[in-house]
Amino acid sequence: MTTTPTPPPPPAADAVLEALAEVLEVRRHADADDSYVAALHHKGLNRILEKVGEEATETLLAAKDAGYENDAAKRQALVAETADLWFHSLVMLSHLGLDHRPVMDELARRFGVSGHAEKAARTGA
Amino acid sequence: MTTTPTPPPPPAADAVLEALAEVLEVRRHADADDSYVAALHHKGLNRILEKVGEEATETLLAAKDAGYENDAAKRQALVAETADLWFHSLVMLSHLGLDHRPVMDELARRFGVSGHAEKAARTGA
Amino acid sequence: MTTTPTPPPPPAADAVLEALAEVLEVRRHADADDSYVAALHHKGLNRILEKVGEEATETLLAAKDAGYENDAAKRQALVAETADLWFHSLVMLSHLGLDHRPVMDELARRFGVSGHAEKAARTGA
Amino acid sequence: MTTTPTPPPPPAADAVLEALAEVLEVRRHADADDSYVAALHHKGLNRILEKVGEEATETLLAAKDAGYENDAAKRQALVAETADLWFHSLVMLSHLGLDHRPVMDELARRFGVSGHAEKAARTGA
Repeated sequence: MTTTPTPPPPPAADAVLEALAEVLEVRRHADADDSYVAALHHKGLNRILEKVGEEATETLLAAKDAGYENDAAKRQALVAETADLWFHSLVMLSHLGLDHRPVMDELARRFGVSGHAEKAARTGA
Repeated sequence: MTTTPTPPPPPAADAVLEALAEVLEVRRHADADDSYVAALHHKGLNRILEKVGEEATETLLAAKDAGYENDAAKRQALVAETADLWFHSLVMLSHLGLDHRPVMDELARRFGVSGHAEKAARTGA
Repeated sequence: MTTTPTPPPPPAADAVLEALAEVLEVRRHADADDSYVAALHHKGLNRILEKVGEEATETLLAAKDAGYENDAAKRQALVAETADLWFHSLVMLSHLGLDHRPVMDELARRFGVSGHAEKAARTGA
Repeated sequence: MTTTPTPPPPPAADAVLEALAEVLEVRRHADADDSYVAALHHKGLNRILEKVGEEATETLLAAKDAGYENDAAKRQALVAETADLWFHSLVMLSHLGLDHRPVMDELARRFGVSGHAEKAARTGA
């Protein structure tokens, strides 16, 4: 008798954002030839912000399409555009010496999520 | 001798995003009078997307200001605008029956962060 | 026998843009209380650019709606949003000491419309 | 004795916008291979709106740069980006069966520029 292995759970936001922050920090100092992110940094802030603006536009268009026809393909397209928007805003933060953490802290502060509550959530308490 | 209690750690991204997802889901079905988010949902998708567009614009302007004068105040303003942008894109996702999770999965998929790696990170293994 | 007076033709682009340029130049130096445009100038470039960004977003949303339902109301809404976008970009140019003329010259240059051709068009030659 | 011929005046807005409207109408029905505009129409409304969003972003960035360093080069860059923004919004209008005329009428209506005043301006009365 064989058992099907349980697929791993999808990674939580912390793991994703921390991994991304590390990758972005490394690539910020890499050669422009080495990666898309390194090339963006070399082109400078305006090029990075053009990408943020492009992805914001594409997110709006995908959301309108999902609003008119809310099927699986349109929803997946919206998810992909939102991921692009967040990704390029993380590159923007990185370019200016920042990362996602103070953004999360700002969202937590506004919504009253405390570190204690978080620790409880994390440890399952 | 007294000891100063250690301040709680800032909440991690998971706690913040999960708490936000819960709050947004509840408010999506609330009376428009009850909250800013409920009012946005009642005004409809275009009003939510106008806010996403406004916050994207304000993020670009704050980033340009931080690019010219990268001091603490300009950096904090950029963090606040980015939080606004992400917050309103979460409201947009909520309006269309989505949340941050598939966006994080999409970012993980692109950057090769697996659930196994994440579990290891989470448990300190 | 009476004749019905012919209604005046709609004003041509020159008259509109020249009149606007004059109005904008006057209001640029007016008290903030006196007009919407004077108030924008007093609030500064970022406030003017926020309006340009907002109107760009509203233009995109109106165009998507007209793309899905191309009726008279949706088309009129798109025209109104485009007018708002152009108007606020004229305020932006005015704030920085510019107006529509070099923009028209740039469009003419790219499309090979010469002053001679234009003079012929204007005089009916 | 020779006289230097006077250079032609720069074309007025009417000539530019009318010539553009004609060009855009022709290219709307052309083969995609024939021109940039025809290719945009074949790619569809979303592609055209992506360009409007991109040019709006580039206009904002150029305006910020001109705000910090208002020299001739920065001003020319802003003029060029504004021309791109207006050009692509004209392509958008064309794609949906519209042109610049109702936009100019809308601006005239808001600013009280009448056809009579315009005719006087045009004929030099």
